[in-house]
Amino acid sequence: MSAVSAPPRAAAPEEAIAELRALLGDRLSTSGAVREHHGKDESYHPVVPPDAVAFALSTEEVSAIVKVCAKHKVPVIPFGTGTSLEGGVAALHGGVTIDVSGMREILRVSPEDLDVTVQAGVTRKQLNEHLRDTGLFFPIDPGADASLGGMTATRASGTNAVRYGTMRENVLGLTVVLADGRIIKTGGRARKSAAGYDLTRLFVGSEGTLGVITEVTLRLYGIPEAMSAAVCPFETVQGAVDTVIQTIQAGIPVARVEFLDDVQMDAINRHSKMNMAVRPTLFFEFHGTTAGVKEQAEMVGAIARENGGTDFDWATRPEDRNKLWAARHDAYYAALALRPGSKGWPTDVCVPISRLADAIIETKADIAASHLISPVVGHVGDGNFHLVFLVDPDKPEDMAEAQRLNDRLVERALAMGGTCTGEHGIGYGKMAFLEQEAGDALFAMAAVKKALDPDNIMNPGKVVRV
Amino acid sequence: MSAVSAPPRAAAPEEAIAELRALLGDRLSTSGAVREHHGKDESYHPVVPPDAVAFALSTEEVSAIVKVCAKHKVPVIPFGTGTSLEGGVAALHGGVTIDVSGMREILRVSPEDLDVTVQAGVTRKQLNEHLRDTGLFFPIDPGADASLGGMTATRASGTNAVRYGTMRENVLGLTVVLADGRIIKTGGRARKSAAGYDLTRLFVGSEGTLGVITEVTLRLYGIPEAMSAAVCPFETVQGAVDTVIQTIQAGIPVARVEFLDDVQMDAINRHSKMNMAVRPTLFFEFHGTTAGVKEQAEMVGAIARENGGTDFDWATRPEDRNKLWAARHDAYYAALALRPGSKGWPTDVCVPISRLADAIIETKADIAASHLISPVVGHVGDGNFHLVFLVDPDKPEDMAEAQRLNDRLVERALAMGGTCTGEHGIGYGKMAFLEQEAGDALFAMAAVKKALDPDNIMNPGKVVRV
Repeated sequence: MSAVSAPPRAAAPEEAIAELRALLGDRLSTSGAVREHHGKDESYHPVVPPDAVAFALSTEEVSAIVKVCAKHKVPVIPFGTGTSLEGGVAALHGGVTIDVSGMREILRVSPEDLDVTVQAGVTRKQLNEHLRDTGLFFPIDPGADASLGGMTATRASGTNAVRYGTMRENVLGLTVVLADGRIIKTGGRARKSAAGYDLTRLFVGSEGTLGVITEVTLRLYGIPEAMSAAVCPFETVQGAVDTVIQTIQAGIPVARVEFLDDVQMDAINRHSKMNMAVRPTLFFEFHGTTAGVKEQAEMVGAIARENGGTDFDWATRPEDRNKLWAARHDAYYAALALRPGSKGWPTDVCVPISRLADAIIETKADIAASHLISPVVGHVGDGNFHLVFLVDPDKPEDMAEAQRLNDRLVERALAMGGTCTGEHGIGYGKMAFLEQEAGDALFAMAAVKKALDPDNIMNPGKVVRV
Repeated sequence: MSAVSAPPRAAAPEEAIAELRALLGDRLSTSGAVREHHGKDESYHPVVPPDAVAFALSTEEVSAIVKVCAKHKVPVIPFGTGTSLEGGVAALHGGVTIDVSGMREILRVSPEDLDVTVQAGVTRKQLNEHLRDTGLFFPIDPGADASLGGMTATRASGTNAVRYGTMRENVLGLTVVLADGRIIKTGGRARKSAAGYDLTRLFVGSEGTLGVITEVTLRLYGIPEAMSAAVCPFETVQGAVDTVIQTIQAGIPVARVEFLDDVQMDAINRHSKMNMAVRPTLFFEFHGTTAGVKEQAEMVGAIARENGGTDFDWATRPEDRNKLWAARHDAYYAALALRPGSKGWPTDVCVPISRLADAIIETKADIAASHLISPVVGHVGDGNFHLVFLVDPDKPEDMAEAQRLNDRLVERALAMGGTCTGEHGIGYGKMAFLEQEAGDALFAMAAVKKALDPDNIMNPGKVVRV
């Protein structure tokens, strides 16, 4: 399997751009800098700028823009914060990027129902800032301060998913603009429903290829009475992973459990001026009542000790907890500093938890035999782990080696009954892997794509080939 | 809105039946009794028998049957235990019912991964019986001992959904036979995935209209260390519902919280020879560690007392707990006994929890002003509640009045931001309500249906009109 290259671009859609300029005035840009910015995400994929960028402020405006594009069969690429990792925002066939970052209104908060409706451009940190005085929070935390529309479109998750689920479990309903400009509402505010096809879940993870998400209704949670964190180094990767498996099997409702390998711990020590053991390590967080949190930590501490965990260090003070998690959140930047001047090629897979130790150990052996450095970190309660290959994009041998390691990683995950991506998405970087994973089910995905986007204008060239 | 009547039936598909008989021998039946049995579910909907019933034993056999039906454009109706409630198994356009009740094999249990793969005909009780020695259980418990394929197809839930979710959250992956006989696998065994469209969730709740589910991979849970139950009568419906809202808001991980109104409590006392207060009542169940369960019960007890709950009675002994839940599970039969000889017309809606007290109180006023009796029970932690109109199906005034009350119930739920069914599904009994609820989103549902079933042979006349 080789790197996917961008297909040739269509001619500039001049007529559509003229109509959009009449509609949007200054909020339609064809400047080189703006186009470049919108053709690039946070990954190693090359810049592929659109022909124009439309800055939308409402669902109705997105609908009007899509109608113009549909009339001229011009591609439409939705854009939130541009923090996708598999080339999701690249304008592979040219067209118009719809930037929803100006749609930053929090439309409704219902503390009694523990839900909220936001415009798609609201970011996760903006939402939690807004919720600060309500005693509620929204738990999904991918690395970036991404837009909630983008997080929905990529089925994002993060460190809290083991307890609170991913965007799949936390989106109650959506407003979506379809490929013909039609506005639909999927789902509603009921916690459960048996009413018809689950369009909400169909759009969650569709990466802009079925429609443009403009509003999102999300579940919220009460901030727990008590939180505590713990850190524990292990003799072996196996010991760390077995601790996670036994914790999950025991039904201990751990809020976060993150694995960091020796390479990542070394990077964090250097970057964050800390002095933690350079060993396979687990970071935990516990949420609950004061007594419940204490009980969880004691149970997990006992499991860790049985599996070769040493110095199970339990922090209840917010400042200690925050320091630990700040170090975890800086893991990516800490990793990059291991090879100054390098770029990161991030990738992730997810496997059944019984295969997690094997998956990580075999992957670390691959990396050890390679000239590339890559730390391993993971949301291991879900069986999900990440690599970041530190590459010089100008060195073909680096890129080829990263691709080779990535291929081996994914093929191993699939052979173990896992998936080619736990949370980064397909974009165009993992389409070949999706074909391998989905097999004949790809036929059904393509049929759905053709049904909802017959002219293939919605983020074409991503997720599913049609 | 009036009751939906069955469309005229197509001519008997003789050629298809002959081919299926060659394929299946004795396992293809055209006997009147077998056809009648398969044309009827547990609801008030009339018997609409298929032309033939095919008893399938494997995914490959289902595929072969569907291929024959596809060739002759003969309708296909999947059938598990026949316990649907909105006419889902009725052969509205004739055709062949595929009975998967012989597909009762538990294909794999992975205690380490807390998951299992079963054939579609395995029932929930059979699965839990099989799991008995593993320390694991599967929590979803609709009233009937339904097949797991059918529970998937109708997006079923039950009393544990407030803690463990519905079939939507608990199906990891599926094997499905599409309308052309193609076999696909959706999802896998990874706990999360960002790989392509969420076909799993598309088939969960599709009620046989997009394909035949033949195998289901499900999440399992460890049996909690401790369980306890509690029962608490309230002065008012408002007090009971406010207790539920405050419990959910406080993040107390209650495993079950069931509301039963005074009418239902009276019925239970008579039916189960008990002597509980004839008042709006909550039944609770708590799962966790011994200390955690005690803490949960104490917290909920305090909330209940603040809301006019009296005699919060906490049972930790299994026999007391089982007696309470047996009474709850018999609620339907207890209700029917309130009007000897009557049939039940069951219905359910789900609303945002902040509107739940209003929804129940206004609905009870409707019932009080009617000549029909209907107890109210609910999985109120989700905002979901049920009525059972006790009708004589031979009395048109009973059926018209039940329809009128049902219309008012659903319209009220929709006006409150809720859904026309929380867990029973659409079948053909609630198609008009779905049209009202989904609005323009129905276009997308119909597009998906046409894409995956272009000849409209999969359970035609249900869920979405095409």
